[in-house]
Amino acid sequence: MRPNKALEAWRQGRPTIGGWLSIGNAYSAELMAHLGFDWLCADMQHGMIGDHDLKQMLPAMSTTDVTPLVRVPWNDPATIMKVLDAGAYGVIVPMVNNRQEALQAVSACRYPPEGQRSFGPIRAALYGGEGYAAEANRQVACIGMIETRQGLDNLEEIVTTPGLDGIYIGPADLALAIGLAPVGDNDDPAHVATVDRIFRACRAHGLAVGIHTWSAAFTRRYLEQGFQFVTLGTDSGFMVKKASADLREARSKLKTIV
Amino acid sequence: MRPNKALEAWRQGRPTIGGWLSIGNAYSAELMAHLGFDWLCADMQHGMIGDHDLKQMLPAMSTTDVTPLVRVPWNDPATIMKVLDAGAYGVIVPMVNNRQEALQAVSACRYPPEGQRSFGPIRAALYGGEGYAAEANRQVACIGMIETRQGLDNLEEIVTTPGLDGIYIGPADLALAIGLAPVGDNDDPAHVATVDRIFRACRAHGLAVGIHTWSAAFTRRYLEQGFQFVTLGTDSGFMVKKASADLREARSKLKTIV
Amino acid sequence: MRPNKALEAWRQGRPTIGGWLSIGNAYSAELMAHLGFDWLCADMQHGMIGDHDLKQMLPAMSTTDVTPLVRVPWNDPATIMKVLDAGAYGVIVPMVNNRQEALQAVSACRYPPEGQRSFGPIRAALYGGEGYAAEANRQVACIGMIETRQGLDNLEEIVTTPGLDGIYIGPADLALAIGLAPVGDNDDPAHVATVDRIFRACRAHGLAVGIHTWSAAFTRRYLEQGFQFVTLGTDSGFMVKKASADLREARSKLKTIV
Amino acid sequence: MRPNKALEAWRQGRPTIGGWLSIGNAYSAELMAHLGFDWLCADMQHGMIGDHDLKQMLPAMSTTDVTPLVRVPWNDPATIMKVLDAGAYGVIVPMVNNRQEALQAVSACRYPPEGQRSFGPIRAALYGGEGYAAEANRQVACIGMIETRQGLDNLEEIVTTPGLDGIYIGPADLALAIGLAPVGDNDDPAHVATVDRIFRACRAHGLAVGIHTWSAAFTRRYLEQGFQFVTLGTDSGFMVKKASADLREARSKLKTIV
Amino acid sequence: MRPNKALEAWRQGRPTIGGWLSIGNAYSAELMAHLGFDWLCADMQHGMIGDHDLKQMLPAMSTTDVTPLVRVPWNDPATIMKVLDAGAYGVIVPMVNNRQEALQAVSACRYPPEGQRSFGPIRAALYGGEGYAAEANRQVACIGMIETRQGLDNLEEIVTTPGLDGIYIGPADLALAIGLAPVGDNDDPAHVATVDRIFRACRAHGLAVGIHTWSAAFTRRYLEQGFQFVTLGTDSGFMVKKASADLREARSKLKTIV
Amino acid sequence: MRPNKALEAWRQGRPTIGGWLSIGNAYSAELMAHLGFDWLCADMQHGMIGDHDLKQMLPAMSTTDVTPLVRVPWNDPATIMKVLDAGAYGVIVPMVNNRQEALQAVSACRYPPEGQRSFGPIRAALYGGEGYAAEANRQVACIGMIETRQGLDNLEEIVTTPGLDGIYIGPADLALAIGLAPVGDNDDPAHVATVDRIFRACRAHGLAVGIHTWSAAFTRRYLEQGFQFVTLGTDSGFMVKKASADLREARSKLKTIV
Repeated sequence: MRPNKALEAWRQGRPTIGGWLSIGNAYSAELMAHLGFDWLCADMQHGMIGDHDLKQMLPAMSTTDVTPLVRVPWNDPATIMKVLDAGAYGVIVPMVNNRQEALQAVSACRYPPEGQRSFGPIRAALYGGEGYAAEANRQVACIGMIETRQGLDNLEEIVTTPGLDGIYIGPADLALAIGLAPVGDNDDPAHVATVDRIFRACRAHGLAVGIHTWSAAFTRRYLEQGFQFVTLGTDSGFMVKKASADLREARSKLKTIV
Repeated sequence: MRPNKALEAWRQGRPTIGGWLSIGNAYSAELMAHLGFDWLCADMQHGMIGDHDLKQMLPAMSTTDVTPLVRVPWNDPATIMKVLDAGAYGVIVPMVNNRQEALQAVSACRYPPEGQRSFGPIRAALYGGEGYAAEANRQVACIGMIETRQGLDNLEEIVTTPGLDGIYIGPADLALAIGLAPVGDNDDPAHVATVDRIFRACRAHGLAVGIHTWSAAFTRRYLEQGFQFVTLGTDSGFMVKKASADLREARSKLKTIV
Repeated sequence: MRPNKALEAWRQGRPTIGGWLSIGNAYSAELMAHLGFDWLCADMQHGMIGDHDLKQMLPAMSTTDVTPLVRVPWNDPATIMKVLDAGAYGVIVPMVNNRQEALQAVSACRYPPEGQRSFGPIRAALYGGEGYAAEANRQVACIGMIETRQGLDNLEEIVTTPGLDGIYIGPADLALAIGLAPVGDNDDPAHVATVDRIFRACRAHGLAVGIHTWSAAFTRRYLEQGFQFVTLGTDSGFMVKKASADLREARSKLKTIV
Repeated sequence: MRPNKALEAWRQGRPTIGGWLSIGNAYSAELMAHLGFDWLCADMQHGMIGDHDLKQMLPAMSTTDVTPLVRVPWNDPATIMKVLDAGAYGVIVPMVNNRQEALQAVSACRYPPEGQRSFGPIRAALYGGEGYAAEANRQVACIGMIETRQGLDNLEEIVTTPGLDGIYIGPADLALAIGLAPVGDNDDPAHVATVDRIFRACRAHGLAVGIHTWSAAFTRRYLEQGFQFVTLGTDSGFMVKKASADLREARSKLKTIV
Repeated sequence: MRPNKALEAWRQGRPTIGGWLSIGNAYSAELMAHLGFDWLCADMQHGMIGDHDLKQMLPAMSTTDVTPLVRVPWNDPATIMKVLDAGAYGVIVPMVNNRQEALQAVSACRYPPEGQRSFGPIRAALYGGEGYAAEANRQVACIGMIETRQGLDNLEEIVTTPGLDGIYIGPADLALAIGLAPVGDNDDPAHVATVDRIFRACRAHGLAVGIHTWSAAFTRRYLEQGFQFVTLGTDSGFMVKKASADLREARSKLKTIV
Repeated sequence: MRPNKALEAWRQGRPTIGGWLSIGNAYSAELMAHLGFDWLCADMQHGMIGDHDLKQMLPAMSTTDVTPLVRVPWNDPATIMKVLDAGAYGVIVPMVNNRQEALQAVSACRYPPEGQRSFGPIRAALYGGEGYAAEANRQVACIGMIETRQGLDNLEEIVTTPGLDGIYIGPADLALAIGLAPVGDNDDPAHVATVDRIFRACRAHGLAVGIHTWSAAFTRRYLEQGFQFVTLGTDSGFMVKKASADLREARSKLKTIV
């Protein structure tokens, strides 16, 4: 089976940088796949990406060696199993609130007897190659998100869930969870302290830790702190930022019709 | 009928800045539409955009006041008429080589007796509103591209074609036409001279002139030269440039798995 | 943030008329959006509309001022959050059976601390504009449906659910719930009495009340009764009724091949 | 091979009534197919229908016995052959201006030696059944449109084109061709006279004649006049007319928010 | 209402052979529908088929008399109801573990008072025809899968669930459930014994029994054993097997570039 | 630039075996790409494949090393250029009738000064990699089809067209051209002689020759004869043949409901 290079790196504690996909399109996914990210995550939760798009985007990503991940909309076994069958090499599961929910996410990623994943890796075995059935339980990454009040309260029991490969932090939801406004790249001391707390709890138990950022600066900060996987930004975000900056620059001193 | 704000500006000789769409997707088109460009052009020639995508992208653009243009794949009346029926307020027609071809493009944009456009503005009248049938001949922009050896040879007869609203320059094809490599934002003196020649011929006959660029710097240069419509860049280009730059910045001094 | 004009009207007790979308298509949605309905509801429960269609239909509706609502297939937080992120200004949630289910629907519509909605209004903020994060909890309509035996039994506890904005009645399911055949525009006294009972319970607690109809006659009846939002009919229904009537008229006295 | 029931009727001079499809959607096409029209025409010229939609709509129509026709965007052999391969039982070809163009349309519909149609009836043979290869040249209807000044001038030579099965009149384009505004259901004496002229020329040479209408009244008028195939109206038109009428009726005397 | 011919056969204990659809495409579905299978099952669990594809595939299947079934991704009422509304004549529900889950599946297939199915058979009534509302509860097949350790433990209580029409066996998941590798067409005595045990339990209570195979040989074996519905193979599987075999044959003794 | 392995083999006179794609679907294309064919050809002429499908299928093919070709619907520069921009490494152009048409096909495949291809290899450069602009003229295969009476008459002038890389034979159209029925794998002496004549003319001038078959037997025959590229069969054909054969085998001696 084709190795999960991202998961391999995380297990060795090595840093990786990922890209986030919010545009439901094969071409933009293929472009992002060629840029040199260690992994890409197609966001089915908040992104404008549904299962119909995903079926086109996973092959587009598979034209390169980038590791394909999917954030599912919910901690729902049916969806987790479907995206794994379609060839995702890992899932990011939002809003894990306690041990039981973490176990449910893990279970959906593992074939019996380790879990309850149903067998039928229709495109996954095409992408993964020979040995998928035997090795998938060890190669498919199961990442939970801690981003709710309840998740923070149950931090310890979640990060010690057997079979869980890592924790991903969504800074905006985390901010809401601790009573702050849902902004990105958050410097608020309470936010920083909460991120640190999750980071330390994970590392204490050998879990990989990841986080979303909106800039190279925050990506570097977290990588320097020791995070295993940091999201640099989103397809749509990159597009909007560059287009806006260039438009501002081009228009300064000129009067166009808008 | 809703006025064609971009064409109005061009007729008055005012500068405008446009964005280019290469990703066949409603969401990325809607994002681009909200950035403040004067017009957007969905590129059906070289972009990954077909008629199926266009039907989703034109409504997405129509959520704002940006003027929607389409570059058709070819000087083909059937396609020109179809994109106008779908609500494009103008077409950019590639590889116009002579007066006869310019007339053919114009004719496809005008209802009889001025042209041969067939009547059925199915979505165009929805977008354009009352009066479309009567006013469309004056509000729909017909832009030809001069970018071949033959087109340059016949420059004068093309730019004096009755009913043609403007000329758009594709710098890469133009470079090939004069024996240069097909690079963008071209500083080669032969390229600059050819662009200037087209520009002057157009302005001498009151035609609007536009050109494609890959940077704010070249956009400003052409606007300062007096171009009416300049393309700042492409959805996918903005995305790739910003993502690459940020990734380089984030990764410097760090060793990740790629 | 762009105000939710429909919700505003309901809060003031003013009557509104809506259209229902069952065809998964951007063009038919845009046509319906131009007809002057106060709001449109894309039906993901019984309509032939999935999330892939919705992504095309919401921009098409957003070309006008019509308020975009979505009936989700189920009281499922993942789906509710996804359609709100895509820009729906309200959800109609089927088969709410008790207070706990009503609370679950409300919670999915509200950011913490009022609910559990996850943050990422990717297209919603584009459509809603500045202030979405801060105001969405007050501007997004959460409508529950009472249409089951159990829902009727728990009517009082449902209509007093904090944060619920209104109740929508599905006459066919309601008929089944009380032992009648699932017909539309139902004059059966038992049906009328049940509708009245729901209506009064809602109004007693200041909830907006809506109902589905299949005719202008029943729409008027309910509006005169004091309903806040009444569905006049469905895209496909309008099409089928007019085509059938015209075909009957055209064919009478003529013998064609069918 | 499954007989072409519409063409059979036309050859016998019997009247038929058809429906027009402008919405690119399988469900609306299937609904229209169940209403009892003799034939349906998917309009790829002015309708919001591309080849991607057509592939979904033809099977949807094939769930009933309605004869499936397609109006192609242009007199283009590639497109004509593609829609026939996909299972259309006839094409309506716009803007036939002279004998040579009529011959080109016919040729694209017939296998050698009668024409130049390329062999590969991939879905057509599935729909048509055994014998398609041998019988298609006689069962596939080739209909030209006369709707331009030039077409009127060459009326005689067009209607005597060997192999042409009928002529379809587009009243709006015809109006433009004779200097009138492009309205539907046209009572202008000049328009009526032109329609009559085409009708008589066709019938004199045994060609079936068809025309587009926007009402049962005009459909009956033309059927009574002796037309073989008359279009009653369009999917989107039926929808818009009924929705508008009902909305007007429901809203009279009521004040809603719009 | 159009009778459910497959279910009718099962009720009479007659054998049927079905095909499985894993490619999300109308054309391949229509091809499979023409081959003479008694029923086809579109697999939304492990197949590359989502709800967007299903809407195109069901009409394509409805061009023939083949009975259309759908395997849903999960025992989820929302999905079950949606595929029934779209015209499936039966659902295969994976991973039924106990009586309560079996009842939930049945309930989603039946209108009140027998179940909780919500009323709105939008395409189903089009396909099923007159009488759908009254007869659907008896004509729609509800099939559960027994394929987990827990399901085997609760075999008796599952197969005696009122309203359940049959049991479908997924050999690969069943293998995992009893500690074997997830291979198809399994001859392992433990596997054979388990299949036999399920078969006998079902037949003892009059339930139809079905099973998935990957070959004509195993299909015959199970039909001879008395199974009511056996899957012969999958669209993609047929394609891959024949292409591989032919390629091997063509290439033997030849040296081509791969 | 990634080398065109198929074209390289043809230039060296080595035999290759290809697969044909008629199903417009990324998953079936990816399956076919993994089977070991030397090249795959997506058939936009007779296949149920449009440009919207192609955009999903080319990335799916690009997950392997198989060389991606496209048969365009027509000798049309716009379409040829579009499929090359999308990443096809060669085009098969139907119905080339004479030198001038052959030159037109070649010209559409070559950037100036060798041809008139417009520059914008948007996905092609992504797939082809560095050097695409400089090397594409030598790496992109331009294959014409000789399959009409006229093409046979002008055989010599076609096969000596500068820049043409090969000739592909469509046996069915060829049969029609010489007065035979359009069957595949044709043993008729007149057909065999015509194929031989084309083969010899091509090889005499160093052109690669290819042909379509429907079986391993005919594939071997042509490879043994010295053809450079032979199509073994079609995705849909493989599926239908295997499913039919297995169904026949499974059903013999059994009586099922059909």
